[in-house]
Amino acid sequence: MPTYTEQGKEFSRDMNYIPDRITREPGRSQDGWVSTGSTSGGELEAPTWPVEPGRYRLVAAKACPWANRAIIVRDLLGLEDVISMGLAGPTHDVNSWTFDLDPGGVDPVLGYERLQQAYFARYADYPRGITVPAMVDEPTKAVVTNDFPWITHDFFFEWRDHHRPDAPDLWPDDVREEMEAVMKRIFTEVNNGVYRCGFAGSQEAYEDAYDRLWTALDWLEERLTDRRYLMGDAITEADVRLFTTLARFDPVYHGHFKCNRNKLTEMPALWGYARDLFQTPGFGENTDFDQIKRHYYVVHEDINPTGIVPKGPELESWHSPHGRERL
Amino acid sequence: MPTYTEQGKEFSRDMNYIPDRITREPGRSQDGWVSTGSTSGGELEAPTWPVEPGRYRLVAAKACPWANRAIIVRDLLGLEDVISMGLAGPTHDVNSWTFDLDPGGVDPVLGYERLQQAYFARYADYPRGITVPAMVDEPTKAVVTNDFPWITHDFFFEWRDHHRPDAPDLWPDDVREEMEAVMKRIFTEVNNGVYRCGFAGSQEAYEDAYDRLWTALDWLEERLTDRRYLMGDAITEADVRLFTTLARFDPVYHGHFKCNRNKLTEMPALWGYARDLFQTPGFGENTDFDQIKRHYYVVHEDINPTGIVPKGPELESWHSPHGRERL
Repeated sequence: MPTYTEQGKEFSRDMNYIPDRITREPGRSQDGWVSTGSTSGGELEAPTWPVEPGRYRLVAAKACPWANRAIIVRDLLGLEDVISMGLAGPTHDVNSWTFDLDPGGVDPVLGYERLQQAYFARYADYPRGITVPAMVDEPTKAVVTNDFPWITHDFFFEWRDHHRPDAPDLWPDDVREEMEAVMKRIFTEVNNGVYRCGFAGSQEAYEDAYDRLWTALDWLEERLTDRRYLMGDAITEADVRLFTTLARFDPVYHGHFKCNRNKLTEMPALWGYARDLFQTPGFGENTDFDQIKRHYYVVHEDINPTGIVPKGPELESWHSPHGRERL
Repeated sequence: MPTYTEQGKEFSRDMNYIPDRITREPGRSQDGWVSTGSTSGGELEAPTWPVEPGRYRLVAAKACPWANRAIIVRDLLGLEDVISMGLAGPTHDVNSWTFDLDPGGVDPVLGYERLQQAYFARYADYPRGITVPAMVDEPTKAVVTNDFPWITHDFFFEWRDHHRPDAPDLWPDDVREEMEAVMKRIFTEVNNGVYRCGFAGSQEAYEDAYDRLWTALDWLEERLTDRRYLMGDAITEADVRLFTTLARFDPVYHGHFKCNRNKLTEMPALWGYARDLFQTPGFGENTDFDQIKRHYYVVHEDINPTGIVPKGPELESWHSPHGRERL
């Protein structure tokens, strides 16, 4: 089994992903914000693949917060008919996520039992983690990219011609700069912050991680007290990115990762906000608490060696009225 | 290290203790309820030792719920001047609780580093767990008994001549039969029920244990909705026995033992009741949340191999108004 906690060390995530992009124009993104600071298009250094309906398969897992983002954004933008989706089961072994939920344990489009096969089809000796989400080229059955922040980014900017007519503007120009700063802080302090608590290799590293996490959650609680969503009145990519961590908070991070100053349900603004999103089409039906719990409690043998999955918490309250319409 | 979880098995507590009693009269208890069903005195089969102020030392540990009962009852009854007390630290090794909190790591009265020495002074080859609470005979430095339910029972019935004048009636005659039934259910379903969850050796055993625990907690929540204390208007031994589990619930049992349907703070009657007791002299000042957390999270290596102790939960709210005076 892999080791997640390293003695005496702070957890740091391996951020080396296959950097390819799927774009509308070769070598060029419709969104130049990152390279040029403007929202017009920009040149790309990474290899690009053409946007083409029916060509790619999003391989995800409902358990994984990073993959869950892509599932939700694909739904919000109405890309279900142009990008197919395969779902790996909640638990995986040291080598790969597996298609154990599919009939015969085989993905019906790729014919694979293990996502690893798609990585090996691209690079025979692929040395890094086999991660979800991954975009797979159906003709070659090879992974195109697993670079998760860019997958959802490109669903929005590059696949725009294929969005449903009333798709939300997940990356509004007018708040882009602030939204990038908000997403960055959410990524380092919250999305990753919970892992930094759970995989801390010493009491000191854990306590530092805990303080960082709660500083950020207190900031979010305040921010969401008078804003319905992170960037104001409409849902953006920033909300998707925060939501997948919040949905896992009480079922997993609170106990398993020791993020236990309080439960999400004890933070009125964040809890109302999380329920508001959960009750929005695209979010709740793509949130599978059973898979989420099984994933973390079974896979992380070094912090839960018994493999026993908690029966709690009570989750009915996710369906209760959130009262956030007034904001 | 000892193993607490046994693969596939339900946890069961070893209830074989040294059965000696410290009594006012040789061979006879002042309380005949258990053997005769009446509240007059009764003959005892177990060896008896004489009540004698200044002769015995209660060895306890603030971390341990069973020992914590004895600390609280000794205080409530005002026995501090007639029964001395030694306190072991929150963590222990496979062999024994240790006096690591004392100067030089030695109990100042017994001169021992390890409680095990007092057990070996009684039985050179004592084969069972070295448990707290233990009553130790100071002249011989040997354990008299570690049979925890009888230790607090006898503090009340046998040491009555030495209680402070306004000591509470912890075992009221008029509700004795019901109180015994209440305490029995609390012991099997709650005090022990949390351990049955945490040390379950299979998912099935855990889920059964979880359901049993919450059935009992729901019963207590209802019982305490219109009663200030378990037996009515006054504190009894039953309240002490429930309190030491409730005080450990959110800091330990909720996460560490996966008793996580909800927190204690989410059960209005139980949470008000727990705070009411906590704020009563004898309870709160004998509740040490830091020692409690360190004990469980450090000692149980097989369910928390990292040994990291959670920083949460927030505990200030134990001091908040409980509003139970109206009951």
